[in-house]
Parts: sequence; C-alpha cells; structure tokens
Amino acid sequence: MSSMLHNQIVKKLVIQALEEDIGSGDLTTDAIIRSDQKLTAKINSRLSCTVAGIDILKLVFDILDPEMKYEIFVNDGNIVEKGQNIAIISGSAKAILTGERTALNFIQRMSAIATLTNQYQQAIKPYKAKITDTRKTTPNFRIFEKYSVKAGGGSPHRFGLYDAIMIKDNHIQAAGSLTKAYLLAKENISHTTKIEVETENIDQVKEALNVCADIIMLDNMTIDDMKQAVQIINGNAITEASGNVTLSTLNSIASTGVDYISTSAITAQAGIVDIGLDI
Amino acid sequence: MSSMLHNQIVKKLVIQALEEDIGSGDLTTDAIIRSDQKLTAKINSRLSCTVAGIDILKLVFDILDPEMKYEIFVNDGNIVEKGQNIAIISGSAKAILTGERTALNFIQRMSAIATLTNQYQQAIKPYKAKITDTRKTTPNFRIFEKYSVKAGGGSPHRFGLYDAIMIKDNHIQAAGSLTKAYLLAKENISHTTKIEVETENIDQVKEALNVCADIIMLDNMTIDDMKQAVQIINGNAITEASGNVTLSTLNSIASTGVDYISTSAITAQAGIVDIGLDI
Amino acid sequence: MSSMLHNQIVKKLVIQALEEDIGSGDLTTDAIIRSDQKLTAKINSRLSCTVAGIDILKLVFDILDPEMKYEIFVNDGNIVEKGQNIAIISGSAKAILTGERTALNFIQRMSAIATLTNQYQQAIKPYKAKITDTRKTTPNFRIFEKYSVKAGGGSPHRFGLYDAIMIKDNHIQAAGSLTKAYLLAKENISHTTKIEVETENIDQVKEALNVCADIIMLDNMTIDDMKQAVQIINGNAITEASGNVTLSTLNSIASTGVDYISTSAITAQAGIVDIGLDI
Amino acid sequence: MSSMLHNQIVKKLVIQALEEDIGSGDLTTDAIIRSDQKLTAKINSRLSCTVAGIDILKLVFDILDPEMKYEIFVNDGNIVEKGQNIAIISGSAKAILTGERTALNFIQRMSAIATLTNQYQQAIKPYKAKITDTRKTTPNFRIFEKYSVKAGGGSPHRFGLYDAIMIKDNHIQAAGSLTKAYLLAKENISHTTKIEVETENIDQVKEALNVCADIIMLDNMTIDDMKQAVQIINGNAITEASGNVTLSTLNSIASTGVDYISTSAITAQAGIVDIGLDI
Amino acid sequence: MSSMLHNQIVKKLVIQALEEDIGSGDLTTDAIIRSDQKLTAKINSRLSCTVAGIDILKLVFDILDPEMKYEIFVNDGNIVEKGQNIAIISGSAKAILTGERTALNFIQRMSAIATLTNQYQQAIKPYKAKITDTRKTTPNFRIFEKYSVKAGGGSPHRFGLYDAIMIKDNHIQAAGSLTKAYLLAKENISHTTKIEVETENIDQVKEALNVCADIIMLDNMTIDDMKQAVQIINGNAITEASGNVTLSTLNSIASTGVDYISTSAITAQAGIVDIGLDI
Amino acid sequence: MSSMLHNQIVKKLVIQALEEDIGSGDLTTDAIIRSDQKLTAKINSRLSCTVAGIDILKLVFDILDPEMKYEIFVNDGNIVEKGQNIAIISGSAKAILTGERTALNFIQRMSAIATLTNQYQQAIKPYKAKITDTRKTTPNFRIFEKYSVKAGGGSPHRFGLYDAIMIKDNHIQAAGSLTKAYLLAKENISHTTKIEVETENIDQVKEALNVCADIIMLDNMTIDDMKQAVQIINGNAITEASGNVTLSTLNSIASTGVDYISTSAITAQAGIVDIGLDI
Repeated sequence: MSSMLHNQIVKKLVIQALEEDIGSGDLTTDAIIRSDQKLTAKINSRLSCTVAGIDILKLVFDILDPEMKYEIFVNDGNIVEKGQNIAIISGSAKAILTGERTALNFIQRMSAIATLTNQYQQAIKPYKAKITDTRKTTPNFRIFEKYSVKAGGGSPHRFGLYDAIMIKDNHIQAAGSLTKAYLLAKENISHTTKIEVETENIDQVKEALNVCADIIMLDNMTIDDMKQAVQIINGNAITEASGNVTLSTLNSIASTGVDYISTSAITAQAGIVDIGLDI
Repeated sequence: MSSMLHNQIVKKLVIQALEEDIGSGDLTTDAIIRSDQKLTAKINSRLSCTVAGIDILKLVFDILDPEMKYEIFVNDGNIVEKGQNIAIISGSAKAILTGERTALNFIQRMSAIATLTNQYQQAIKPYKAKITDTRKTTPNFRIFEKYSVKAGGGSPHRFGLYDAIMIKDNHIQAAGSLTKAYLLAKENISHTTKIEVETENIDQVKEALNVCADIIMLDNMTIDDMKQAVQIINGNAITEASGNVTLSTLNSIASTGVDYISTSAITAQAGIVDIGLDI
Repeated sequence: MSSMLHNQIVKKLVIQALEEDIGSGDLTTDAIIRSDQKLTAKINSRLSCTVAGIDILKLVFDILDPEMKYEIFVNDGNIVEKGQNIAIISGSAKAILTGERTALNFIQRMSAIATLTNQYQQAIKPYKAKITDTRKTTPNFRIFEKYSVKAGGGSPHRFGLYDAIMIKDNHIQAAGSLTKAYLLAKENISHTTKIEVETENIDQVKEALNVCADIIMLDNMTIDDMKQAVQIINGNAITEASGNVTLSTLNSIASTGVDYISTSAITAQAGIVDIGLDI
Repeated sequence: MSSMLHNQIVKKLVIQALEEDIGSGDLTTDAIIRSDQKLTAKINSRLSCTVAGIDILKLVFDILDPEMKYEIFVNDGNIVEKGQNIAIISGSAKAILTGERTALNFIQRMSAIATLTNQYQQAIKPYKAKITDTRKTTPNFRIFEKYSVKAGGGSPHRFGLYDAIMIKDNHIQAAGSLTKAYLLAKENISHTTKIEVETENIDQVKEALNVCADIIMLDNMTIDDMKQAVQIINGNAITEASGNVTLSTLNSIASTGVDYISTSAITAQAGIVDIGLDI
Repeated sequence: MSSMLHNQIVKKLVIQALEEDIGSGDLTTDAIIRSDQKLTAKINSRLSCTVAGIDILKLVFDILDPEMKYEIFVNDGNIVEKGQNIAIISGSAKAILTGERTALNFIQRMSAIATLTNQYQQAIKPYKAKITDTRKTTPNFRIFEKYSVKAGGGSPHRFGLYDAIMIKDNHIQAAGSLTKAYLLAKENISHTTKIEVETENIDQVKEALNVCADIIMLDNMTIDDMKQAVQIINGNAITEASGNVTLSTLNSIASTGVDYISTSAITAQAGIVDIGLDI
Repeated sequence: MSSMLHNQIVKKLVIQALEEDIGSGDLTTDAIIRSDQKLTAKINSRLSCTVAGIDILKLVFDILDPEMKYEIFVNDGNIVEKGQNIAIISGSAKAILTGERTALNFIQRMSAIATLTNQYQQAIKPYKAKITDTRKTTPNFRIFEKYSVKAGGGSPHRFGLYDAIMIKDNHIQAAGSLTKAYLLAKENISHTTKIEVETENIDQVKEALNVCADIIMLDNMTIDDMKQAVQIINGNAITEASGNVTLSTLNSIASTGVDYISTSAITAQAGIVDIGLDI
C-alpha cells in the first residue's frame, strides 16, 4: 500500500485472514509436504484485468516464509492481458501451498474492483467527472476496497464517519431543516473538516448553496435536475451525483457537468477476477 | 448465528467493523443529533431475497445502544418480497444513524449470498445434489459468508485448512503420486478427519477409490466423465463436482448423480441486495 | 464522551489503564477490604477549575463494579469553585479503593486541559479567534486531550495525519515548491479533505492563496506580518496563527484578525488539577 | 528501555501511538513524498535538558523503516545544552515525516520529566534523601514516565497496585485501625512483598513502627513532626515524606533526615521540552 | 478470584480458553440441541478434594449464557467428600454442553493443586513453616495455579520477575560475588521491593545475612546445614527452604525452623481431580 | 511446530507467556546484568525422557534476543538419556536469564507428555491400537499438549469442538435417541466432517453401527463387551476405547482389537520432566 502506516493496520488484517483460514494448522500441507521442499509458482491472470493487491500477495507469503523470493512483472493499476503472468514467487513449498488461497482471495477481489472502477472511469472519459466510492463496503475489508478503487483510477471518498461530515436526510429531519443541520455541524467541527450535504431537489440545492456547503450531493435526481443544479451551483461548491449509477446511465450523468459520481457498484458488485497460482 | 461460541468471535468482528467505520467519531451525528433523541426505523427489502444476517444487524445496534428495541418479522432463510419489512428497530437516534451503514453492509452481503445460494439449490431440485461453498471467500468475512450459504439452503464445506484434508494437484505432485499423498495424509492425521482427493480424470478417480478416500472431487471434468466417475465410485465415496459451475451448467452437472456441487460463485459473485433503513 | 462510537475505543483505553495500575492484583485492597463492604465517596475539587472527564470517571468505576451508583452535580465544561463536589459515588468499597487513582488520573489531567483552554479562550474574548489544539499530545491519550480542549471551549484541530492535509516546510522542500506540493496533494486526495498550508512569510501566503488552499497557517510570523496576511487573504481562506502562543502574546495575535490560534500549551503544559476522592 | 521484556510491552504501546496518529494513512506524506525519497534529519534540543527516550525515538522510526540509520550523540540521563544535537537519523523520507510527531511526542515528554526530576534531586544534594515518584501518572504512559524519573536521577516507587502494599487512611478506616489493617495485609501477602503505611501524625508513626512496617510514609506533616518521626523511627523502617513537595519546600523536607521524598510534580507538572527535528 | 481487577485479566483468559475449544463452532451441540432447550446439571466430585475454581466455572457459563442460574454448595478452599455436589447449574442446554469441558478443565486442575497444597501444608502442621509455590507453572495458567495454592492453604511467592528480586547463582556469577550482586540490585530498585538471595552453603548464608538480604533461600541444603543456617540467621531475615521437597522430606525440612518451604510439586505434579458434570 | 501457520498462533502464546512472567520488567536481571554481557548455557535433561518442545525453547529466546545462537543435539520425539545435553545456546546474558524459566516451563511439560505418551504406546506394542488424547487439556495450552502427544508417538484426536462431531450421552438424551441425534448431526454438518458416537453398551454399539457412524467410542465397557463390540463392528467403523485407561489396564484393552485408545492421563497426569539450564 502507498502508506508506511498501512503496514501496521494492513499487516494485522492479513495475519487475521491467515488465521481465519489456517486455524490450528494446514492439515494437508503439514502431512504431505516436507519443510525443506521448495517451489516456484506463477501468479497468472486468466482474464484481462486491472491489477491491484500485489503488495498484499507478497505480504501473505512474507508472513509465512520471510525468505520468499519475488519477480514482479506489473504494478498495481496496470492492465494485464488474459494469460499474462503477474509475478513469480519461489520459496518454501509449505508456505506457497498454505498461503495460496488467502493470497488469491485478496488479489482476486482487489483486482476485480480495480477493473470495474477502471471501466466506469473509462466510460466517462470525455467528461471531467471522477468516479468515487461509498461506505457500502465489506466489513473489515474497506481499506483494501478503497485502495483498489484508487488503483483502478477512481478517486477516494471519505474513509469513514470520522474524516468528513455528510448531512443526510435523516440528519436534516432530526435537526428541523437543512440549514439548521448545517449550522449545528459547522459549530461543532474542526475548521479542517469539510461538510457535504445530500440534496434531493433544486430547493435543497439552493439551501445547501446558501449555507456554503463544501460539497453538494445530488441524490437520485433526474438528469435535467442535475444539469440545473450544476448551473445554479456554478462552481461555488463541489458537486457529486449519486443514485442509479450504472454503466449505461454513467455517460448521461457525467454529461451534466458534475465533478464526482459516487457508486457502490464498483466495490459491491465487482465479484472476483480469475487469477491463479500455477506450480 | 447458531452457535453460542460464535458470539465471541462474531462479536469481535462486528466491533472491528464498527471501529473501521466510526474511527475517532461519527462527526455528523455527534454534531447534529442530541443524545436523548429517539428514532424508529424500518429495515426494508427493496427486492425479493432470501434474508440472512438478522442477528448481526441486532448485534450492531446492541453494541451502540444496549436498550434498543426490535420487532423482527422474518427469520434467516426466509424469502421476503420486494418492499417487505424485515424488522422495526427503535431506540437512540444516534445509535441508529451511526450504526445504519455497518448494519446494512452486513445484511446486504449476507442476504445476497443466501439468495444466490437458494437460486442455485432450487435450480437442481429434481436431483439429490447439494450446493456447497469453497474457501474463495472475502478475507475476515468467511464466517458470515459460510453462514449465509447455509441460510440459503446450501450445505457447508470445510471451514478452513484445519478441519478436513483436501489433497490437490500440487500436493500430489509434491508427494510423487496420489496414492503416496493419500498415505502420507492418512498416517499423520487424526482418525476423526476426513480426506478429500481432487481428481481430474477417470484414472485418478480409480486411484482415489482404491485408497479409500472419503470424498472424491471431480474437478473440471466433462459431464460424461462425471457420469462415468459416479458409476465407478458407486457410493463408496462421497462425490463432489467442481469447476465451471454456473446457473446454466448446474442442471447437467447435477444430473450426473454427484452428491455435492461446490462453487465459489455463490459467495464471490453474489454482490449486495438492496436492503434499506427508513426512518 | 459525546460519541457512541467512542464507547468502544475509550472503553479499551480505560481498561488498559486499569490493567496498567492493577496488574496481577490490588494487593492492599484485596488483603484488607471485604467483598461485601460498601463505601460512599465524594469527588471534590480542591481548586476552581473547568471540569472534564466525568463520563470517564464513571466508566472506570462501572468496569470495576457495574452496580455503582452516582450523583453527578456538574457537566463537563462547567466551572466549579474550590471545594465544590463534582460527584458522589457509592458502591463496593473494593471498587472505589482500587479504581480511585486511575479515575483521578483521568479527570485531573482532563480538567487541567479544559481549565487552561478556557483561560486562553477567555483571554481573547473581544476577538473572533478560536483557540485550537495540535498533534503535540501525550501518546495514547490524544482522544482525552482533544475532548478536554472542546470541554474548555476550544475548537478541535484535525485528529491525526489521516483526516486533513497539512503541508509543512519539509513537504514543500521535498516537492520543490509550495505550489507543487499543493498540486500533488490535491491530485491524490478525496474531494472531502481540506488542505492546510503552513506559511512563514507573506510571499508564501500569496502562493498559498493563489493555489486556493482551504486553510493558511501563519507560522511564527510577527504581529505585523500576520495583520498583513489576514488583509491579503481577505476571507478567501481560513487563517490560523501558530507559534509563540502564550497567555501574554495571545491578545495581540487575536487582534490581527486571524480565525484560529493553535497552541500545544493547552494540552502539553496544563499539568493536573487537584481533584480528590474523600470517603 | 533497559529490560528486554520491555521490548514487547513498549513496542505495543509505540505501535498503538503510531496508529493513533496515522489512522487510515498519512494523507499529506503519502500524496507528496515518493517512496524512494531519502532524508537526513537532526534531533536537536532547543533548550538545555536531561534527555530521556532515545530508544523510543529509534523504535518509532524502526517500525516505519527497518533500514533507518542512526548516529546517537548522548545517552538517556545526559544533560544537553541549548541547541545541541541529540541524534542524526537518515532513511526513508516518508518514514521520517510520518513518524516525526510521534517520536517527538515521546522524547519531549520523557525529557521534561527527566529534567524536572534532575532539578529536584540536585536541589537536595547535601542530604541523603532520594526523589521518588507516585502513581499519579498519565493513563497508559506510566512505563515511560517511571523510566524518565530514573533517567533523571530519581528512584522509582512501586509500579502499581500489584508490586507492594500501601496502607492508606481509607484502608485503615475500613479495617478499624492501622494495626488491624497491617495484620490483615501481613496475613494475606507473599513474604516477598513489602508493606508501606501512610501516617499523618506521631501517634500513627509509633503504631506503624510497632507493627514493624517496612516503610513509613510521613504524609503532609510539618517539618518539626517529620524530624521527630525520623528520630523515633531511628532507622527501623524506611521513611518517605509526602505532601506539599515543591522546589521551595524540598530543602527543608530533606533536612529532616527522611530517606525518600515522593512527589507527583516531577511527572505531572513537567510539561514538554522543546526538542525539534530539522531536515 | 478475589480481586476485582482480576476480572479483566481472568475474563480474557477464560474467553481465550473457550475460543481454543470452540473455534468456528461446537458442531455437535449446534446440530443437535435447540436454542430453547434447558438443562439442569450437577457439578460433582468423584473423589474427596479441596475445591478451587468455582468462580471460574461460573464465569465460563456466564460468558455462554448470561441468564444461567447457580446453586453453589461450597467455597473455594473447602474440602468436599467423594460424591458430594459442588454446584447445580441450570440454563441453556447449549451453553451447558458447549462449556462443560472448558469449565471442568479449569476446576479439575485448580482443585488438584489446592488438594495437593493442602496435603503438603497439613503434613507440617506442628511447625511454623508455610508451603509456598514457584515460577515453575504452566505458561499462561499461572494466575489460576497461584490462586489454587492459596485456596489450598499455601502462601504465595512472588508472581513473576517483576514484583521481587531473587538473586540466583547465575546472577552471583555474572556480578562477581553475592555481595556485588546484592549491591547492584539494591542500588537499582525501588525501596518498595524486597531482595531474596539464593544460598547453597553456610558461607553464602553468612554473606547474605551480612548484606541484610530480606529473604535468604536455603537451596538444596542438608537438613543439618539448614538447621545451622536458621540458627545463624536468627530471625534477621526470612528463611525459605528449597529443593528435594516431597511429602516424605517435608517434615524434616520444616523441623529445621525455616519460615517457608517452596516447591514446584504442588503446581506441577498435581494432575487433575475427577470432577464431573451430570445431567 | 510442524506447521508454518502455527508460527502465528504459537508465537502469540509464547509472547503471552513471557509477558505473564516478566510483566513490567525482570527486576533482578535488569539490575545486575549488563546489556553487553554474553553467556553460553546448556539445556540438559536430568532424567531419561522423550523430548518435545525444542522449537518453543528457541522461540522464547529468539523473542528476547534475535541474535541468539543454537546448537541442537536432538529432535522432538527423540529419547535422551539422564544427563544428556539437548541444546547449547549462546547470546545475551540478559535474554538467557530472563527467558530461562519460561523456556523450561514449556519444554519440561511438553517432554513429560511426550514421555508418558511414549510409555503408553510402547506398552501396547504387540497390538494395532494407537494411543490418542482427549479435550481434557490445560486451558490455553492445548496446542502444546496435542503436539507433545504426537511427538511421543501418539495419534491426535479432534482438536476441539469444531473439527469433528462427537455425540455423547447428553446429546443422545436431548435428541431422544442415538439415531435421532445422529440424523440431526448428519443433516446439519459438512460432508467433510466425521461423526463419532459414544456408546456404553452393545445395544448402543449396534444402533451406532446401524446409522453408519464413522467412529464408535466404547466408553467404560468391560473387556468382554469391548471384544464383542469389535467383532460386531467388524471393521465397518473405527473403534475407540475410552475410560479406566491406565498403564495396567492398557494391555487388556488393546487386546480387544480396538483401533484407538483415548486417555486424558497422558496430558493431565504427566507432570514435568526435570530439564535444566546450566551456565
């Protein structure tokens, strides 16, 4: 991952994943493979995809065998062709066979997300809009999903509830009005925190603009309403379209001139890419 | 989850998921919602699906507000119609707004897996074959995925590397032959552990049968080979078909008479079901 | 603490603090006090102060005796007089004697920070400037220090390295120029993240203004330079004064018209307030 | 720290402190600094002080970059002059910029405590009395504070509730009398554990002496009473003065002939020393 | 356990023990027992023994079913007859069947240690000597073993390396002499810490006495030498006999007049007592 | 240990054991031994035994001093004579003195179990029966006990409640009959899981055979009943004798022709072997 800090958090999650799979021992490998047996294995993509997760793959095997050797042929974010090798690893046969599934479970999911994000981003190439993610992620796997979105060319949204304000309809309702909710937020937060407001119609857009929201989300609006909203906002806030985002609606949404298009599809519907390990 | 023990493991994972999302605080809710505000919310399915994860949803909110009240209308494994309410919860507005996303992230993924498993299992109703899962699961989310497969009517496979032997091609290669691999395994394991052998052709099936493997996996075989294998095995081992399992191939695979059909699709390609929380 | 989420993180830190003190057992209390002995104790302030940490005090005793009863006379942020009671607690004598030191260690430090913050904020009452904190906090105690600043009437700064961008001289040097550093940051981060730039002179202020930094820190500038900077910025960025902030310089800094004044003194030099527990 | 064991406990606390600051990533450094950039930085003291925490500083950077190189010019416990360099570190620019604040947060607090302890100890040079600390420490930071007291020339008190008996007024009250409390303690503890008794007047001193307490604390006594107590005890117990200990009262307290003077001021009121990191 | 603090540490170890046994689920109970089934079970001792661990037994079941009801007939330290009931528990059948083995694993070992300690202590009734334990305990089970020694009427030794000094032959050798080792220790430790010195002959006893060791261990000495040592020491240090302690040597060792007799046998050779759970 | 995975779980348990002993520091070694002092020590067996735990011994010292050097003379499972050296270690004197007790606590218990298991297995040499263990293990020490049984020539039983089904009398009672319990189990579990049924008489043996249990436990039966059971079962299920297993009954039990003999004695009654560390 890009950050050194990630090493600590990510390392814990990877060890946890290995423990989930291995538990009290890899019965098969322990019984059949000798400790001194060595193997060389290829990590190979059975389909064209945007790769993400190479460092995690290495981390899995490093934990099981600190002497493992790697030849890496691509970087995260690169597109590989069907049948192309991503890496060659060599070292302890036990480590390779015990770690195989966990390593692939990471890279298969991460590359699928990078690939789908890349498709979404490519689909709106003529426009300035950037694809961004949501908090609809798999519990305890968010850091890997967010990273993969970035590897696929997307732009990250806030990481969680703690690094930006997002005022939603329920908050507005509880506070009495959008303006009241905004003022309560403004009063209580750090000057280093941005406020995004979810709007559902042009009136709300105007209200959000009026209080000087940093980001205005246009949620589930028609294409026409979004166009109008973008014109009204006129660069005085960042705009983010949300709702009904699919590969087929993407282009018309981007054509409204919004700055960002957020969608859970790139993380939640990506599935896995068939990447295999061959001896 | 069904087991009391699970409470400890599952509780840790749910708290970890909440920490992942909330970090140093839910800035928005903390700023806008008063501690004494109460809410009632409906958990509603926007699509027909097989529900899984109701206990997890409750666990999320119980952690945030031990006084939360629940009305639950369905059980895990039940099919709900589009628009049907799954539950009504009432309690602290802060708890509901802060926990909403994490709770939905669990139940949306779990229900999607139950739903897809159910479709797979229904598709082979005329046959005895049972759908079973694999170890191709999301890291640190396996216990929820395995549970959802069961809620959807599937039958669980081994949980990890520690609770059954699975001899794969790489083990066979390392040991010299299927028979040698089997004997090494047999010699080293508990008498309480079953041995499954992955076979790729009829010769291997015969070899696996000869050593008395408990389960014989028919991996990526043609329908004809599978049929022949089932006849040769003749009930002397459990049979499990694997490879190229899709909704369209499922029926012909089941028609070969295999006991189990294992597929990662039910967990890896399920995506999420649109279940929402409405105030 | 205000957030429900905090309960999990804060609870872990409070349990950790109890374990630090109690280790393998409170030898004295275990030897001398019977399990069924009860006590009533007053939490009393020996000096006038702004209180912070009442919930933590309760949490300490709740962990040791879930049946403890509390009468609480003030709220966090309230000013108490010398000799005033903050709370009366009654319950297990063992719990009270074992938890006393840990509970006081929290509330004494937290109240000292709230008190000093309050003094700083009061000192600049005629001006719009808000006192804000820094990341110069005690390791593993930051969440309590940041909370206390807020209780004392201060405004929080970013929590850590992860919730806002702060471009410092070292980053500028590494990137080549302030503008280059800003553009690299802008390109890589979420649209939900603000960028603060540290400036040391008027030229840098102009450069930061030119790239549209969200917040411009005026670091170690003379009062005259700060005044000029505020005029140049003219409301197009948030201004934050930093460096040489003491009770005696505070007034003239605030008089420059800056929006925020950040200082580590309110957390690092606060010491402890003498709050005691009397049986 | 001096003990190998400390490595495990201290390492956990240092990693925890890094996680507290870095959370889901150092946004600024990750965006601006390339992974292959190198830096050399000086750790420099802006004021004369007694240094403590050099090993912790190294540990912080070792965790972020195991290849970091160090030149260390002083040892813990040494006094440095204003402007003197403590260390030069070189390695990954990302590691240095990400770890800077956490490393300084440790060494600034630890050196402040060592410096203040040293001042206290120097102030009573003509006397035999040793300065010792208390349990009034920052939660989850005690091991660093106790270590710093020792680095500053002080003598450690018990670490927590588990490694020595301290009978206080509340225990005496609960047991019925000092003698009863002592006997209950004696009966229940290991023969390897010392018993300290807190006394408030000469009568209690006599009672403590009579039961053969290992250590007699003279709590909040007048100088005259302390002198008399020391004479009565006459070397038959260790004496420890406590209460109203400031730099100005220290000399007269020491002149009473007590063996130890305990004070929370050396840890609680030390603040931070201005130690900086310059590129 | 007697201390409230223990609740946190002991609870963690008990949960860890449950996770060790239950892992990803109690397959048998989950498959066969319905969640609403209730059971009543007797905890019965098949042999006469000194009971220890009743609170742990309760803790195990409380974790699995917070509604479990208990009738407890004896206290830790009581002697029960063969066939006597220790407790009756009633509640969830799943909780009882899943927790049975873990609960019994605790109480069987703990009661065996209490029973053996009691036998040792009874064997030297005419003498003042107290039986005490050692650090030769089962890794991660020491707190339960030490507690059981106390329940059996023994007296605890230091808990670990951190709560008392014990100078052994290797330390003496490394320091150059017993006196040098003692002085190094004295200089470096808290005034609240006792120093025990291991001696192997009369000369060492005299040297230890000369430096004023708090406790003098007479290690592997003849009965005659121990007698002589006790006379020489003459109450000026606590005496502790060690080495070759068995039920048959115990009486003559105690007759030498030593204060304590330490032995690993009471923890290491106790085995388990047959305590069963009957439905 | 044989499995790479074990490294993570075992490493955590070994670090936990070191923390249990060292706590806030090894006072004696820290005070007396210099950091640069080196030692060479022999691990020597004072009695003939079957060794187990050499890797754990190394792990203990590796954690305290990563530069420690080892000469290892035997492998786990080897029998050493009285007075034979098992290993020579050299490195930091502090690491050796601080780690000594913890390292020996592991290897002494593990070797005792391997030794007793070996005696049991040797005692039935003429028969095919294999000695196997139970779940009556020391809480949080099971992985070491199970490993030692294997090192001593025994065959492992299931690890916990999660890797095989064991239907006991209580399950049978709750389900209504052995057959009903079996069918409930069969229906709910993975096809990869074996079912063992506990039987107490010939009728139950027939019922278990009739439902095709994988393993039939003959619990507390007479030698004659066991013989009859083995004849009836006739190789159609694995047979396991349980109850009243001692060195004196072992031979006649094995003579009945059972496949496995399970006993808690090999783990619960093994005590410790006197293995020492000599400088």
